Amino acid sequence: MRRFNCDYSEGAHPRVLSKLIETNLEQTEGYGTDPYCAEAAGLIRGICAAPEADVHFLVGGTQTNLTVISACLRPHQGALSADTGHINIHESGAIEATGHKVLALSSSDGKITAAQVQAAYDEHYNDDAREHAVQPKLVYISNPTEMGTIYSKAELTKLSETCRRNSLILYMDGARLGYALCARGNDLDLPAIAGLCDVFYIGGTKIGALFGEALVITNDSLKPDFRYFIKQKGGMLAKGRLLGLQFIALFDDDLYFEMARHANAMADIIKDACIKKGYPFLTESVTNQQFPILPDRVLSNLGEKYEYSFWQKAGQARSAVRFCTSWATDITDVQALAADILDS
Amino acid sequence: MRRFNCDYSEGAHPRVLSKLIETNLEQTEGYGTDPYCAEAAGLIRGICAAPEADVHFLVGGTQTNLTVISACLRPHQGALSADTGHINIHESGAIEATGHKVLALSSSDGKITAAQVQAAYDEHYNDDAREHAVQPKLVYISNPTEMGTIYSKAELTKLSETCRRNSLILYMDGARLGYALCARGNDLDLPAIAGLCDVFYIGGTKIGALFGEALVITNDSLKPDFRYFIKQKGGMLAKGRLLGLQFIALFDDDLYFEMARHANAMADIIKDACIKKGYPFLTESVTNQQFPILPDRVLSNLGEKYEYSFWQKAGQARSAVRFCTSWATDITDVQALAADILDS
Amino acid sequence: MRRFNCDYSEGAHPRVLSKLIETNLEQTEGYGTDPYCAEAAGLIRGICAAPEADVHFLVGGTQTNLTVISACLRPHQGALSADTGHINIHESGAIEATGHKVLALSSSDGKITAAQVQAAYDEHYNDDAREHAVQPKLVYISNPTEMGTIYSKAELTKLSETCRRNSLILYMDGARLGYALCARGNDLDLPAIAGLCDVFYIGGTKIGALFGEALVITNDSLKPDFRYFIKQKGGMLAKGRLLGLQFIALFDDDLYFEMARHANAMADIIKDACIKKGYPFLTESVTNQQFPILPDRVLSNLGEKYEYSFWQKAGQARSAVRFCTSWATDITDVQALAADILDS
Amino acid sequence: MRRFNCDYSEGAHPRVLSKLIETNLEQTEGYGTDPYCAEAAGLIRGICAAPEADVHFLVGGTQTNLTVISACLRPHQGALSADTGHINIHESGAIEATGHKVLALSSSDGKITAAQVQAAYDEHYNDDAREHAVQPKLVYISNPTEMGTIYSKAELTKLSETCRRNSLILYMDGARLGYALCARGNDLDLPAIAGLCDVFYIGGTKIGALFGEALVITNDSLKPDFRYFIKQKGGMLAKGRLLGLQFIALFDDDLYFEMARHANAMADIIKDACIKKGYPFLTESVTNQQFPILPDRVLSNLGEKYEYSFWQKAGQARSAVRFCTSWATDITDVQALAADILDS
Repeated sequence: MRRFNCDYSEGAHPRVLSKLIETNLEQTEGYGTDPYCAEAAGLIRGICAAPEADVHFLVGGTQTNLTVISACLRPHQGALSADTGHINIHESGAIEATGHKVLALSSSDGKITAAQVQAAYDEHYNDDAREHAVQPKLVYISNPTEMGTIYSKAELTKLSETCRRNSLILYMDGARLGYALCARGNDLDLPAIAGLCDVFYIGGTKIGALFGEALVITNDSLKPDFRYFIKQKGGMLAKGRLLGLQFIALFDDDLYFEMARHANAMADIIKDACIKKGYPFLTESVTNQQFPILPDRVLSNLGEKYEYSFWQKAGQARSAVRFCTSWATDITDVQALAADILDS
Repeated sequence: MRRFNCDYSEGAHPRVLSKLIETNLEQTEGYGTDPYCAEAAGLIRGICAAPEADVHFLVGGTQTNLTVISACLRPHQGALSADTGHINIHESGAIEATGHKVLALSSSDGKITAAQVQAAYDEHYNDDAREHAVQPKLVYISNPTEMGTIYSKAELTKLSETCRRNSLILYMDGARLGYALCARGNDLDLPAIAGLCDVFYIGGTKIGALFGEALVITNDSLKPDFRYFIKQKGGMLAKGRLLGLQFIALFDDDLYFEMARHANAMADIIKDACIKKGYPFLTESVTNQQFPILPDRVLSNLGEKYEYSFWQKAGQARSAVRFCTSWATDITDVQALAADILDS
Repeated sequence: MRRFNCDYSEGAHPRVLSKLIETNLEQTEGYGTDPYCAEAAGLIRGICAAPEADVHFLVGGTQTNLTVISACLRPHQGALSADTGHINIHESGAIEATGHKVLALSSSDGKITAAQVQAAYDEHYNDDAREHAVQPKLVYISNPTEMGTIYSKAELTKLSETCRRNSLILYMDGARLGYALCARGNDLDLPAIAGLCDVFYIGGTKIGALFGEALVITNDSLKPDFRYFIKQKGGMLAKGRLLGLQFIALFDDDLYFEMARHANAMADIIKDACIKKGYPFLTESVTNQQFPILPDRVLSNLGEKYEYSFWQKAGQARSAVRFCTSWATDITDVQALAADILDS
Repeated sequence: MRRFNCDYSEGAHPRVLSKLIETNLEQTEGYGTDPYCAEAAGLIRGICAAPEADVHFLVGGTQTNLTVISACLRPHQGALSADTGHINIHESGAIEATGHKVLALSSSDGKITAAQVQAAYDEHYNDDAREHAVQPKLVYISNPTEMGTIYSKAELTKLSETCRRNSLILYMDGARLGYALCARGNDLDLPAIAGLCDVFYIGGTKIGALFGEALVITNDSLKPDFRYFIKQKGGMLAKGRLLGLQFIALFDDDLYFEMARHANAMADIIKDACIKKGYPFLTESVTNQQFPILPDRVLSNLGEKYEYSFWQKAGQARSAVRFCTSWATDITDVQALAADILDS
């Protein structure tokens, strides 16, 4: 049985693990104040071309999202998000538990548009009794989205302009950011994202680290006291250097992007097989998550050899599922899966 | 420069790390639903003689405390704690951030007594207008305490009886539990703790793991839906098996206690040197944290070779400091420190 | 200029005010522990045929909603509500500020169905990874709804059965409950509501009181410690008797329903004028709020003499608005408005 | 039986009630946007000599405290308060329920000093690991205090200077402010308070109103969006004019201070009797609350004719109790009580 149900089935890329092994007995300060975290932060500022950015390392995505969003908002403010957004449906109400409403915007492909944001903003401020509603203040996007789609530079630029014109904070959840940046058709890069967003994170957990997310804050007003929020929300790792070390391994050469390219290429093999076979897709994903719609009979057969994620029913005897690849995906396994799809 | 300022200066014990290395490329389910977490939970249920206990693995101590306490309490309830308790002063208001007051009880040695708990309970319930005050509902203790002291079986039994008589939940923060259980004079063990507490955790971060705390819930009423709380508070590790694997390494033989005994023995060397020299202590610690009161002049000299933690001023030109040992502490380093104390 | 924009433009019904005046100099205990609150609670238990119910008095609707819902839920649980529900859009995120997500269900008329509740429940529990989502636990309905519609006994019975079968709490927001119970076609009464809901409130603010809502808790498990929640959320009035006194005035004879009947009758005059004129309605309201869709030109003319609430654009040069009546609405004013609608 | 247990045993001063009666049938906008609230706000700005202040009206004290404090603080910040402060012990954890720790400072008379505030500030900022602790950001004081004592102009000036030097917000809970301003020895007035505090409230509930507190915000940075907070926390009264009307009655002439002077004078009669009899006091109260320490035997006798509040045991067979007077206290009743004390 091979797992294609998610991109965190294995441990870490061996070079990440090596970094932990070789430094294991060194003594450093705790809580992320060690030299390795400083070095990793410097590397990330460098590749983001954001020399003034604050970089913090957290353990996981939900933790990062709830820490960032609660730090950015005052009590009466909420976060605009696609209704498919991770914070809206897959974090057990983590944002609400910090006191803030997620203001869901309808989305079929996981993305939201500048026009939707502007409309939500206008609807709020055009209401004379607006203090009876939650004030939109932060825009949450994920790139790639939970549906595998990506934002173009033009789309992100429009979102950014809309946010800045209206004093909204633009936050990008980059749990799988590498896959987006290495996707076919992508025209964004880290410096562009650092320039257009107020705060974003570069995900490690789902791209080759044991765990860890690198949070980049470029908006000066969001920087003060951020370490308090990390501590309060339970995200400050005692042996914080474990995070710094992993991000050094990911970014001191091209490893992070190398892994992402591999995963995307593996996903393309699955995608191509589905296309050849004439199976439709739930969304036009260009990243390592593919959402084909397959007959339940076919799924049942595939399920004997491969793990995938059920996504949703899609008509009579058909279902949308997710196939997911990673740095660790073996081409032989993918080719076997593709062949079985074609034979289905 | 050798570090005696905390017990999390290094990575993990090599046998813990090996466990991660040897399983690195295996594929498992995420979020703690893998076979390794199941195995580790079974081991822990076994050593606790608590076959019905629920065992969950979380990443860190503050995260565990805030998750447990907010899961146990209704909005109007608070947690009784020593005023020196970690939740009261060293977690950036994490408990309050989940909506609950920490009801501090005065303590000079880090411990609280059954009598203090009963008095706080009575004071609340004897007030006709008690609904204007926070209702005490959970008793938080740490063992060893933040001051290195430990609870005896008699003390814990009295606390437990007081809690059960008054429908209070007894929660033990065991961030350094191994050190307590291996301390000179200790008469508690894991089965006793499992029997007397409603919920407690066995700390890994500060005893040889990279990170990780094993939460043991023995009170049936606290078990339902606990995974929701872990997820909501950002404590559910995607590659959850990393936690299970580490706890297997800690508990499939005597490693956890072996490390604790070593650290305590190393601390004894420091303690003995201070006693010989006539230096007093802030508390009568029997564990791996020692709090001697030294002349500032001596501290200044020691500080050139050793890291320690400043704790508090203690009179004219004297300060209480913390020296901390761990599994990784080398006897040569400790002997050098002891010699320097004796020569001071 | 006559106000038809809401049902709280005036003070209190004179008989309510008289009750306050005649008792003004009496001395009583504070915080709702006085004999008048006890008397009012007894009256309400009587008319609800719920001798075991707990009755509490709060000042306003948002306060009541946030106090009840946060008291009923554990941190990982949320409230199902129509997307048009007051808690979802008109309370500034009050529910989220207590840590809980409002799980919005699509509604065109302000109501939700038992089938929608069951579907939301099933969707949650059919998900193997359900702990990554908010657990539905409470069903919030308003009767009449924010759109003026009402629940039939059959509908409420089905909702209640669905809730009880699935251990969901059914909570009715009765800010305008009197108008529902006196509406044409209504077949519910207070005993039925008390029997079918776990908790509900009878609104005073919008039906003739200066302020005040009477909360009725029939589910035993929701009763303990409720006064703590009221106090903690800032809803415990020092001179609590002011609430009890008003509800005595409302319920020691038929005044509450007398006022509701009057308001509904006044609303019917407006409704009939719109029907005669051929104006459509946003919803089929049978209560004191009417939502006709009128040409903007007509609205502009009416706006010179009457206050109404703009609701939403409704196509080219037409808007849905709200006309609202109350106990204080004068028939002469309504007839003038109706005539102006007919002449428009 | 005459009540001296609190200052909210009666309804409102007749002139306050008259104001409500005479306007009862007028129609106005809701939610505090009516002309009466505007007029009352203007009056208050005038008597405070604070033409730029924002004035809001809320229903009660706990509600005001939790709304203000949660609006002023970011998640990692807390409120310094006397350990006897209302927010620390008598609000059921209302502040913590909004996510913030109350940082208690030791106080024997209900007051805190500038030196205590500075010390708490320094202790926090001198800690290198300060992000592990709650950041002090707001200073909560009550005037008069819960113990009946008052702040002098010099004391308040020093507190204000300390706060401004350290970017702390100074908030005065004036639930009984009138009694302080009319106390013997007082040298503060409303313009001084408006100049020295960032935000404070003038209490109506405990000085002659049915209910209501007038919040005055003089610090510009605290003004934006404040109505959202009031709404979200359930404090926005639908018939908001009821608050404006009452404050007009209190402040369009000297009524507020007239009532306070009367209550203080009545309290003096009780105080003098205790002094003459040689009974000591828990604190040196100069306002309408007196805390004598009386033999339990005497208290038992007094208890047959007068209600008082038990405060605390004060040695063998003696207790501290509270006698409280108000605008409604009759001199005959007080004289009878004083005589009984003298005869005891």
